[in-house]
Amino acid sequence: MSEAEGIAEILVLSDLRGLDSHGVRFAARYLRGLRRGLLNPRPRMELVRRRGAVAVLDADNGLGFVSARAAMTTATELAGTHGIGAVAVRNSNHFGMAAFYAMQALETGMIGHATTDGPPHTVIWGGREPMVSNDPIAWAFPTRTSPPIVVDTALTGVKEKIRIAAERGEPIPVGWGIGPDGAETTDARLALQGALLPIGGPKGSSLIVANEILCGALAGARFSFEVSKALVMGADHHDEWRCGHFLAAIDVTAFTDRETFLDRVEEFAATMRAAAPARGVDRVYLPGEQAWLAAEAARRDGVRIARATLEELEGVATEVGEPMAFTRLDAR
Amino acid sequence: MSEAEGIAEILVLSDLRGLDSHGVRFAARYLRGLRRGLLNPRPRMELVRRRGAVAVLDADNGLGFVSARAAMTTATELAGTHGIGAVAVRNSNHFGMAAFYAMQALETGMIGHATTDGPPHTVIWGGREPMVSNDPIAWAFPTRTSPPIVVDTALTGVKEKIRIAAERGEPIPVGWGIGPDGAETTDARLALQGALLPIGGPKGSSLIVANEILCGALAGARFSFEVSKALVMGADHHDEWRCGHFLAAIDVTAFTDRETFLDRVEEFAATMRAAAPARGVDRVYLPGEQAWLAAEAARRDGVRIARATLEELEGVATEVGEPMAFTRLDAR
Repeated sequence: MSEAEGIAEILVLSDLRGLDSHGVRFAARYLRGLRRGLLNPRPRMELVRRRGAVAVLDADNGLGFVSARAAMTTATELAGTHGIGAVAVRNSNHFGMAAFYAMQALETGMIGHATTDGPPHTVIWGGREPMVSNDPIAWAFPTRTSPPIVVDTALTGVKEKIRIAAERGEPIPVGWGIGPDGAETTDARLALQGALLPIGGPKGSSLIVANEILCGALAGARFSFEVSKALVMGADHHDEWRCGHFLAAIDVTAFTDRETFLDRVEEFAATMRAAAPARGVDRVYLPGEQAWLAAEAARRDGVRIARATLEELEGVATEVGEPMAFTRLDAR
Repeated sequence: MSEAEGIAEILVLSDLRGLDSHGVRFAARYLRGLRRGLLNPRPRMELVRRRGAVAVLDADNGLGFVSARAAMTTATELAGTHGIGAVAVRNSNHFGMAAFYAMQALETGMIGHATTDGPPHTVIWGGREPMVSNDPIAWAFPTRTSPPIVVDTALTGVKEKIRIAAERGEPIPVGWGIGPDGAETTDARLALQGALLPIGGPKGSSLIVANEILCGALAGARFSFEVSKALVMGADHHDEWRCGHFLAAIDVTAFTDRETFLDRVEEFAATMRAAAPARGVDRVYLPGEQAWLAAEAARRDGVRIARATLEELEGVATEVGEPMAFTRLDAR
């Protein structure tokens, strides 16, 4: 598989899973960054450090889609030998949907974990200016019959939802953002000019700090406050971030028998699904279950892509001399 | 050091760090559980599984203070050899302040990580009944001159603060709890009868699920929904939980040079401390910094213990035939 095909696979899977915020709509900005020489289209990735169950991969300023994937492959190999494996990535860039790399571990029946830093758009608790990123945490756990349990959560409010609220002139929930004056606001437009807040205030902020140290100091990469703010400020292209990722794989069989583990995970999932639902909720869904159902439906029925995204893709395709035309199936 | 001394050290350190919710006030409930034969006062802990960089410790129904500490010692040894080490603990009980075990790794200059499950008092997202615990996440990172960066955060609202609000008849913030009818409430008394909510709603809930699988299925221990609710329901003693913990240590020098790492951590800390503060805040504090300052002050000036806690301790001391009398220094 070429690197471009590998990136396309992850982008399309994001759209299939309903995570269209991380889907093909971002393809154009990566392409522009590559064409302008800001990102390295042919990174010479190298394991610059290796000891026992851990390694450090230098991504050579390529996209994180390529380096994080390679790093997780190494992490699962290390876990196969040592029971656990961890690979930190430096000199990298956006890796899209964190869940993908965690889910890679599922192919070998392992548990996967991924996190990253990125451009600053969130305050550290107690501050008023954006200094950290949403530093997502992803986990994937194998199951026997249930959809795999896949955690993928930003440690902030959802920027995309704030953007939509701003367009519609709707308020955002308390605790999601602050305005440029540093005061908490429910005004989506003010929050977009200001900064996001971590989930749970100091709690989410402290988890972000942990990820900053792992992806910045341990990986030998830039902290979020050192990463380019171009995209946050509205640029149409991805420029050089040189951020870090931290990936880990855990071999279940080093801890317990596979069947015992799967029995227990199924027991947990069944108990949660059978829990009395909250008002207005049909039932409890495990993390990743709705994304899995969305992907099943999309594989059957197709996936909706916004007209603006299609037009942007056609534009850059023409620009790079590979013109394409989508057959549009407009709904209703 | 005897096991009792080891437990006392952790309880007192909690009080010193200002985490009095996990301090000596809990000593009486552990003692009662031990005396009633519900907890094992002489656990024969055993590494029941071991491969490469990982191990599983059976706590033999002793207190988590003892088993988690032993497990982190093993994890740091494994990390010394393999760069990372992870130890899961089964058949365990309350381990108190999660930060302690993460901080153990600092003694060897390593990064420490700890999590646990426990009694159910929190809903899984979408549910209305308590099915999971607060499943805290702790991280400790070495520093050169700054106080160590120590993350220790429950993934729920703060139960102790809800209790205090209930006593004072004050409301709690939106998003902290639901009443027995399953509806969100700002009435602290209703929330105490109902359940806590995870931080960030589905986000915190998904991180709790990850910890449940690590501490339950992977460790081979009980999930939170299987752990005794006696304490949640107001019992005066700790009964048998048989819960799980998951601890990991990371050897910084397997990833990068120690001095480079420490330089970068200090750079991060200095930048965050110098960040423009939010309204009404003097400056940004790194995770664990205020607890560290509190402990410094308490070592100098002494620590305040609630009169009710002292009286309870005197009561159980007399009960076990080791009468003691505190010299009370009542403030004002």
